[in-house]
Amino acid sequence: MSLDSHWFTELCEEGGSAFSLKILRKLHEEQTDYQRIEIYETEQFGNLMVIDGFIMLSARDNFLYHEMMSHPALFTHPDPRRVVIIGGGDCGTLREVLRHPGVEQVLQVEIDERVTRLSERYFPELCEANGDPRVEFLFGDGIRWMAEAEAGSRDLVIVDSTDPIGPARGLFTEAFYRDCHRVLGDDGILVQQSESPMYHMDILLPMHRAMRAAGFAHTHSLHFPQPVYPTGWWTATLGSKRVAPADFRAADAAARPFPTRYYNADIHRAALAMPEFFRAALAELAAPAP
Amino acid sequence: MSLDSHWFTELCEEGGSAFSLKILRKLHEEQTDYQRIEIYETEQFGNLMVIDGFIMLSARDNFLYHEMMSHPALFTHPDPRRVVIIGGGDCGTLREVLRHPGVEQVLQVEIDERVTRLSERYFPELCEANGDPRVEFLFGDGIRWMAEAEAGSRDLVIVDSTDPIGPARGLFTEAFYRDCHRVLGDDGILVQQSESPMYHMDILLPMHRAMRAAGFAHTHSLHFPQPVYPTGWWTATLGSKRVAPADFRAADAAARPFPTRYYNADIHRAALAMPEFFRAALAELAAPAP
Repeated sequence: MSLDSHWFTELCEEGGSAFSLKILRKLHEEQTDYQRIEIYETEQFGNLMVIDGFIMLSARDNFLYHEMMSHPALFTHPDPRRVVIIGGGDCGTLREVLRHPGVEQVLQVEIDERVTRLSERYFPELCEANGDPRVEFLFGDGIRWMAEAEAGSRDLVIVDSTDPIGPARGLFTEAFYRDCHRVLGDDGILVQQSESPMYHMDILLPMHRAMRAAGFAHTHSLHFPQPVYPTGWWTATLGSKRVAPADFRAADAAARPFPTRYYNADIHRAALAMPEFFRAALAELAAPAP
Repeated sequence: MSLDSHWFTELCEEGGSAFSLKILRKLHEEQTDYQRIEIYETEQFGNLMVIDGFIMLSARDNFLYHEMMSHPALFTHPDPRRVVIIGGGDCGTLREVLRHPGVEQVLQVEIDERVTRLSERYFPELCEANGDPRVEFLFGDGIRWMAEAEAGSRDLVIVDSTDPIGPARGLFTEAFYRDCHRVLGDDGILVQQSESPMYHMDILLPMHRAMRAAGFAHTHSLHFPQPVYPTGWWTATLGSKRVAPADFRAADAAARPFPTRYYNADIHRAALAMPEFFRAALAELAAPAP
């Protein structure tokens, strides 16, 4: 069968696949200084944000991504108080970070203010905590911010960006990870969205290599479902300066004083499990050259 | 964008979504006594089998489904020797079952012999163990076979069927589960493919209820990625007569004498983790009526 104009389709060239959602109408479209943003109302997934033809999030299933981009990293650091989010303009990750009572300040550095303004309008549920006094918004270049930030000034860096193309390309480099490493305190944790293990091992393995080269003692990819992203199977990759990811604060995660829809302590542990092919690829990465 | 005739698209009505694969050519098409089978050569997923418009498997990613339909159940039973597979005509699950040296006999009851014949031709790698002397093929009605089989004659029942529509509908009923329970020995395990937790809680929860009503002491859904199925997130549901799913043979799983690409002991444990919304739904199911 073929799909008519009542569908939005995202083509994934590298996978030879495509994912489509049935739409009721286009709610908004604009070209910003950085990218083309479209907002649709879908039949079954609520509102949908698309940037440069790629689905960013839907109202229905973004809880998977946002919970997994935030809670595992926050429950790995022993006492995360100072958080910086690079990207994250839709504010879904920010909302989850703010659920942690111990967090004292969150700076969000998003390059495109229009993403946040449109999220306030079309995804108000994700922006409900934006008025929290602990939050500061900076609309600017996250790579530059990280290069200039004070050493040891943050506990957690969350890189919630688009794919490594366009303005986000520099967020996937050893140079950027070195800056993150410098800006983080001794127990500091970096977490970054890291694409699909089915399509993007060519991004994931260099990311592990680059984070380790930048000084992170531990790197680990967490796996979770995300239906609106290619293959429906996604990862976030942690770089940790001291705490091993397996030693996360499981008791605190189990006793968390806020609601979640996907995350819990068992899911956290489960997300750390490495598929056999991924484990083998990382073992090869760690092995000394012959 | 819209997709041209070089794509195969599966529409998922209930999800308002669609998944497409770029195809190089159609290799085969036929109407059997039971269903319409198409085989395509795709650009990135190898060969693809489609039944009545629904993707059954691709060469590229079927390892996820087939490993998770077999190894968790086999490593939960203390000593599985006698296995029956209902459906499973592509023989991918069968191949995985036969990797277990302790398995003495496997009967596969597939209603449509043409599925197996086409798999032999277009997915020969899945059929490489079909000549194993431990295997018996029966092409017939699995529901009827289960109703007539001897009590206590099997250790493991694997229901590897299509969605609960058409000929597979009767495989998702309490009556069928009662027959499975009777046919299984004291440590018997039933495992059945059980759709997506994102779209099909209306199938999953009644399945848990029906398996418990049929006498299974434990029911548990395992989660795993399966990119070519709707949402890319799939489940297999276990019914166990005695062994709790968490008490699987983890040491044996870790020391398994055969290769896997996804499965390992950590992945087994991870697949048992329940997303928070699923845990809450099952807790409600178990609660006494108010």
